[in-house]
Amino acid sequence: MLTLRRLDIEDAKALIAAAKAKAERIGVSMCIAVTDESGNLIAFERMDGAKITGINLAIDKSYTACGIKKGTHILGEANQPGKPAHGIASALGGRMVVVGGGLPVFDAGDVVGGIGVSSGTPAQDLEVAQAGVDAFSNEPSSSSFLRGTT
Amino acid sequence: MLTLRRLDIEDAKALIAAAKAKAERIGVSMCIAVTDESGNLIAFERMDGAKITGINLAIDKSYTACGIKKGTHILGEANQPGKPAHGIASALGGRMVVVGGGLPVFDAGDVVGGIGVSSGTPAQDLEVAQAGVDAFSNEPSSSSFLRGTT
Amino acid sequence: MLTLRRLDIEDAKALIAAAKAKAERIGVSMCIAVTDESGNLIAFERMDGAKITGINLAIDKSYTACGIKKGTHILGEANQPGKPAHGIASALGGRMVVVGGGLPVFDAGDVVGGIGVSSGTPAQDLEVAQAGVDAFSNEPSSSSFLRGTT
Amino acid sequence: MLTLRRLDIEDAKALIAAAKAKAERIGVSMCIAVTDESGNLIAFERMDGAKITGINLAIDKSYTACGIKKGTHILGEANQPGKPAHGIASALGGRMVVVGGGLPVFDAGDVVGGIGVSSGTPAQDLEVAQAGVDAFSNEPSSSSFLRGTT
Repeated sequence: MLTLRRLDIEDAKALIAAAKAKAERIGVSMCIAVTDESGNLIAFERMDGAKITGINLAIDKSYTACGIKKGTHILGEANQPGKPAHGIASALGGRMVVVGGGLPVFDAGDVVGGIGVSSGTPAQDLEVAQAGVDAFSNEPSSSSFLRGTT
Repeated sequence: MLTLRRLDIEDAKALIAAAKAKAERIGVSMCIAVTDESGNLIAFERMDGAKITGINLAIDKSYTACGIKKGTHILGEANQPGKPAHGIASALGGRMVVVGGGLPVFDAGDVVGGIGVSSGTPAQDLEVAQAGVDAFSNEPSSSSFLRGTT
Repeated sequence: MLTLRRLDIEDAKALIAAAKAKAERIGVSMCIAVTDESGNLIAFERMDGAKITGINLAIDKSYTACGIKKGTHILGEANQPGKPAHGIASALGGRMVVVGGGLPVFDAGDVVGGIGVSSGTPAQDLEVAQAGVDAFSNEPSSSSFLRGTT
Repeated sequence: MLTLRRLDIEDAKALIAAAKAKAERIGVSMCIAVTDESGNLIAFERMDGAKITGINLAIDKSYTACGIKKGTHILGEANQPGKPAHGIASALGGRMVVVGGGLPVFDAGDVVGGIGVSSGTPAQDLEVAQAGVDAFSNEPSSSSFLRGTT
């Protein structure tokens, strides 16, 4: 039997809130998704004016980041022409997203979930996703956000 | 040219909050989705312990309800053997959900969005979805919930 | 943060071995899948002569059972004409299987995975899946099979 | 009438065991799939800690290799910009995998199945898949494959 940890709904909402605050600061309406470590959706918000194509891109970026345990921009580099993973973008029914904006969330070395952001440029999406991850990582471990972990 | 009204992200979160409060009262962890009048996801929450199969069922129930402008339980009746819509459940790649728990949200006679709930029995799902809709309908139009509409 | 338990690969193989032994006793070649509590595949075996249509049916039965936290035959009853879940079979892109042969695996009250069996009659599939679950449940908790649980 | 040969379940498990032993030696948890010459799954194992996105990638790599009768890394080269198969990666609903880690299994000149590996780098995936194929190929051809081996 394996024992594992995953983000709960309050964690997910805190990640989204932090990402959203960053999105507002840079002035871009975003779709923001948080999935658990198995890639299943926990929470999602589409800010008013965000792109409808961003909905599933955000969800799939988070799914991809949980799966590959890396940011989707890193998979994007490996997907460039001439690189060995070129063409992986269309795998898994196209859910494998190779554009920046998806990040895994680590806790004590393990992936416990992910965040995916879409509607801006890949750089903006990544910046907003990172703000979500940073909020998680900066929480003191005694808070409810990181209950009983480090 | 058409002008239309749709739920904004704050409306969607208020619908989810009201549905979630009902889910807690009846003691069932639920997946709760809110879509706009075009069937596109605005917000989603999976309560801790809710079913993973409930994620897309909730989203698709809300999508279906927005589309048919009726509760999914009503489509369920029309999908029964001998009825004219029998078999419609598999349409649209299976996104046409014929099980209770999806409701459209009306405002001044127009569909402005929908809510979909899944993880309980169809009756529980419908009860929780209805709680979301009721919270919306009961808001005075001067509130932030119905900002500037009637 | 949530803490949860799931079947590991050795658990999955033990479940398959027990199910397979039962399949051999009743003389039916089966497809046997084990998924984790999130519905993701851990291990799969197709016995020589089992049905090719049984491959994904077995995987999806296990996925469904993990999702609904019940046997797929129970969802099958709710899917019958006149019942409120009639038509749910086509949900989730058709991955929602309503035929017997999928069972969740519980440990200390929590779903930790599932098993799905296909190629026989629904009754045979269920019998074989149950043999897998029984092997798991009957293991003394001190064994590696149920490491540190009850 | 055609008569064909294909891997049986014991062959498939032997291929997986050999691949898994290599994966352990290089210290990477892998998803390992074996399909028959028709591209249908025979057996699958996800080592603890392997990537969830690797599940279907492994299955689809094996499927692709059986289909094209070549390693998926070779299709990857043909999929590069400027090459005649550029863009084939998205064919077949994205099941056409152009990343290394899928290999056909030949016996006396015929494809009798395939193996697909995913969770490492493409080079690691290929190395582990090759270890599975080597175990098969090194068996004396007088055996019916690995009957009576360890």
